[in-house]
Amino acid sequence: MTKPLAKPSTDLVARFAAIVGEKNALTKDADTASYLVEPRELYPGKTALVLRPGSTQEVSQILALANAEGIAVVPQGGNTGLVGGQIPDVSGDQIIISLSRMNRIREIDESGNTMTVDAGVVLETIHREAEKIGRIFPLTLGAQGSCEIGGNLSTNAGGTAVLAYGNTRELILGLEVVLPDGRVWEGLRKLRKDNTGYDLKQLFIGAEGTLGIVTAAVLKLFPAPKAQEVAFAGLTDPEGALKLFNMARARAGSMLTGFELMPRIGIEFTLKHLDGARDPLMAPHPWYVLMELSSGSDAEAARALMELIFEDAFEHGLVDDAALAESVAHRESFWRLRHGMSEVQKAEGGSIKHDVSVPVARIPEFLERATKAIEEAIPGCRPCPFGHMGDGNIHYNVSQPVDGDKAAFLARWDEANNIVHAIVDELGGSISAEHGIGIQKRHLLPKVKSDVELDMMRALKATFDPNGIMNPGKML
Amino acid sequence: MTKPLAKPSTDLVARFAAIVGEKNALTKDADTASYLVEPRELYPGKTALVLRPGSTQEVSQILALANAEGIAVVPQGGNTGLVGGQIPDVSGDQIIISLSRMNRIREIDESGNTMTVDAGVVLETIHREAEKIGRIFPLTLGAQGSCEIGGNLSTNAGGTAVLAYGNTRELILGLEVVLPDGRVWEGLRKLRKDNTGYDLKQLFIGAEGTLGIVTAAVLKLFPAPKAQEVAFAGLTDPEGALKLFNMARARAGSMLTGFELMPRIGIEFTLKHLDGARDPLMAPHPWYVLMELSSGSDAEAARALMELIFEDAFEHGLVDDAALAESVAHRESFWRLRHGMSEVQKAEGGSIKHDVSVPVARIPEFLERATKAIEEAIPGCRPCPFGHMGDGNIHYNVSQPVDGDKAAFLARWDEANNIVHAIVDELGGSISAEHGIGIQKRHLLPKVKSDVELDMMRALKATFDPNGIMNPGKML
Repeated sequence: MTKPLAKPSTDLVARFAAIVGEKNALTKDADTASYLVEPRELYPGKTALVLRPGSTQEVSQILALANAEGIAVVPQGGNTGLVGGQIPDVSGDQIIISLSRMNRIREIDESGNTMTVDAGVVLETIHREAEKIGRIFPLTLGAQGSCEIGGNLSTNAGGTAVLAYGNTRELILGLEVVLPDGRVWEGLRKLRKDNTGYDLKQLFIGAEGTLGIVTAAVLKLFPAPKAQEVAFAGLTDPEGALKLFNMARARAGSMLTGFELMPRIGIEFTLKHLDGARDPLMAPHPWYVLMELSSGSDAEAARALMELIFEDAFEHGLVDDAALAESVAHRESFWRLRHGMSEVQKAEGGSIKHDVSVPVARIPEFLERATKAIEEAIPGCRPCPFGHMGDGNIHYNVSQPVDGDKAAFLARWDEANNIVHAIVDELGGSISAEHGIGIQKRHLLPKVKSDVELDMMRALKATFDPNGIMNPGKML
Repeated sequence: MTKPLAKPSTDLVARFAAIVGEKNALTKDADTASYLVEPRELYPGKTALVLRPGSTQEVSQILALANAEGIAVVPQGGNTGLVGGQIPDVSGDQIIISLSRMNRIREIDESGNTMTVDAGVVLETIHREAEKIGRIFPLTLGAQGSCEIGGNLSTNAGGTAVLAYGNTRELILGLEVVLPDGRVWEGLRKLRKDNTGYDLKQLFIGAEGTLGIVTAAVLKLFPAPKAQEVAFAGLTDPEGALKLFNMARARAGSMLTGFELMPRIGIEFTLKHLDGARDPLMAPHPWYVLMELSSGSDAEAARALMELIFEDAFEHGLVDDAALAESVAHRESFWRLRHGMSEVQKAEGGSIKHDVSVPVARIPEFLERATKAIEEAIPGCRPCPFGHMGDGNIHYNVSQPVDGDKAAFLARWDEANNIVHAIVDELGGSISAEHGIGIQKRHLLPKVKSDVELDMMRALKATFDPNGIMNPGKML
């Protein structure tokens, strides 16, 4: 870093405000408060200024000024991130740039299967617009009603459709990015193939706003499936789930679009705390799998395939019971159990989170070892590991002991992390599968990255943001 | 660049040779000749030394020495690249590092669906190894019998399976890379999801060896399709092919795994020059489409879907005739017509090449405008545009006039390029869809990239290869 970062003076605040107009420059606590509280309320932040630019040009002017004056900026989308990446530090010196006003759908190319959107468009809006022309944008996650595509991009969001369609990174054809010095990179290409030099968009996808601000993107659209079938299965153990996954994938190929693993305790939390939730199967089972098949052609084929898979699964003793959704409402109720699983844990007191991945084949071993180790360390704690088994991605969450002290439990966060992450590391896994690093895991990065890799990351940061104004204190 | 590059002295040649052993350090013209001739014989090169390292450690030592002494290195795989990226310049000062000896399959993880391979493994070997366990590695291209995976990676190779599985970039989970200073980045991860910082592997994929040398990779494997159906259709014009593509994609979704466009003249060249080639349909048609459907579940479904698509296509007058392959041999004969299309053009004299892409929906307009312009400029020339319509990628090749002078025709290469590329640029396309930039298109880059983008590319190059030893004269 060439010079220390500065505090935004009253004069400077006025100059920033002049770029976006008074009413889009928030300085009062009452106005800025909602930008400072994130979903888990783990990362307190302060700011003297929230700017709400309305155009790429305004973002460009803001960054040029911030860069010249050494003011740290924190880009923010829908403020749904779970690792604090969108929250300024407590100094009050970092200013927030909210992209929420930039919410225009710039173009929908039906024949080319692309949609070009501003960074501030809410994910669910994109879903709706795609549906209108018989397409889908497959990125699907719990926060889709409020998260914004710019944030999804900057965190390389995962979700439940990764198995079939890939992470956000794989769903993007082009980007428009404002660089830290205010220059605009016009990379809004709509091409499926383009080998003309380094693929620069990859730098900004998943960079958590540390290299520039994504202001627009070209998204890939896909044909809407003609039919979907969803089944909920009860199993004895994750080993059976792994076998079921491999068998289903071999039979269904790319028609297998969802494979989510859940433990009984997660279902119980959901039954207790989620309005209208019903036990999916007659009797309780130690583990559950939600399996989704999608067909681009006809409904009968998907149904027949699902039945075939479960005949085979029963025959081989992989599952103990299963229910196939009999209606759209039934299907949605199954998915609701899965999507509600994160939220309901709040009602059970403190929850220590791990968003980890391991090679798919190592999931049973990971679950067994992690649970043994964590229960030994914190007697009475209640592991509730669930997630995207098909991607090797488990949210290894641990709820506090019943009637235990929440604060005392949460004080053991780092200790629990160390236990779980050590096992993840041994299995060649990742300590952040989809939520990113943000503030939360920044101190862990040196433990899991080699010096060479950290050097490469720092070199990239220094090259693109030499003054270090972009989201300092996050990730690196 | 901090210092000028040096000539390899006799002493230095000996020090390089000591790293790999005498017999893997080639200095005689007879031994180095095959490393200097590329498929189209367009880029003459000289070298004093070809090194054939046998391990990552040896590559590391070579680069550390080259970096310290300012010696330019040219990484080379199977030497099948079409833009000269793997060929040294004519100075004789650049040394070649051939990865061909590093041809070990390091690991196959059946349950995790990954294969870890050295950079020098031939693509077809990877195909065979995957098939043994009922999987595929979908990258498929004409040169697969001799191209090596390290080269495929470094050029982000495309091919005929991009429509369903993406470019090489999307098929890679992890990399091992030797950086220009000899340090080794151990990035051989096997994870489907990993959001722990910048995705560094993206830097090296498609970088044409300008940022480091890829020595190993973790590849994604996919379930082998249970059944494939291939049809060959005759059409009046590319507009019909676009409609057929959109209709087929809407009906087949991810089961549509191939959609290749060819002109009659390409079929005629093939009939004339490819042993055993037969006209695919009874009567000639101005245009042809090869369509492939793959099913992960059963053969009947794929067949029924193909028949449904063509019933619909005939009903709407999109195609004039079509034949469905009735056997594996029949299917292969259809694909052979397509895969042979590049090779057979050699027998028709000089051919000026364009490897371009446009947004898929603009292909008919592109073909009409390019052909009009090129035929006006070079009367009697014979455009033979073919390629991956589903990806928007057309090899807009132009054969010389019958009985014309080959050299005189080829002398107009740049003029023809300018005509075609100007239209591509207007349509928001790319002047190199899959072959890369190499030597061939380096001078064109400033025409199609903004100053901001070129600056970003140069900044990356300067950051990772400050002494400029990695494949100088290529790409940037």
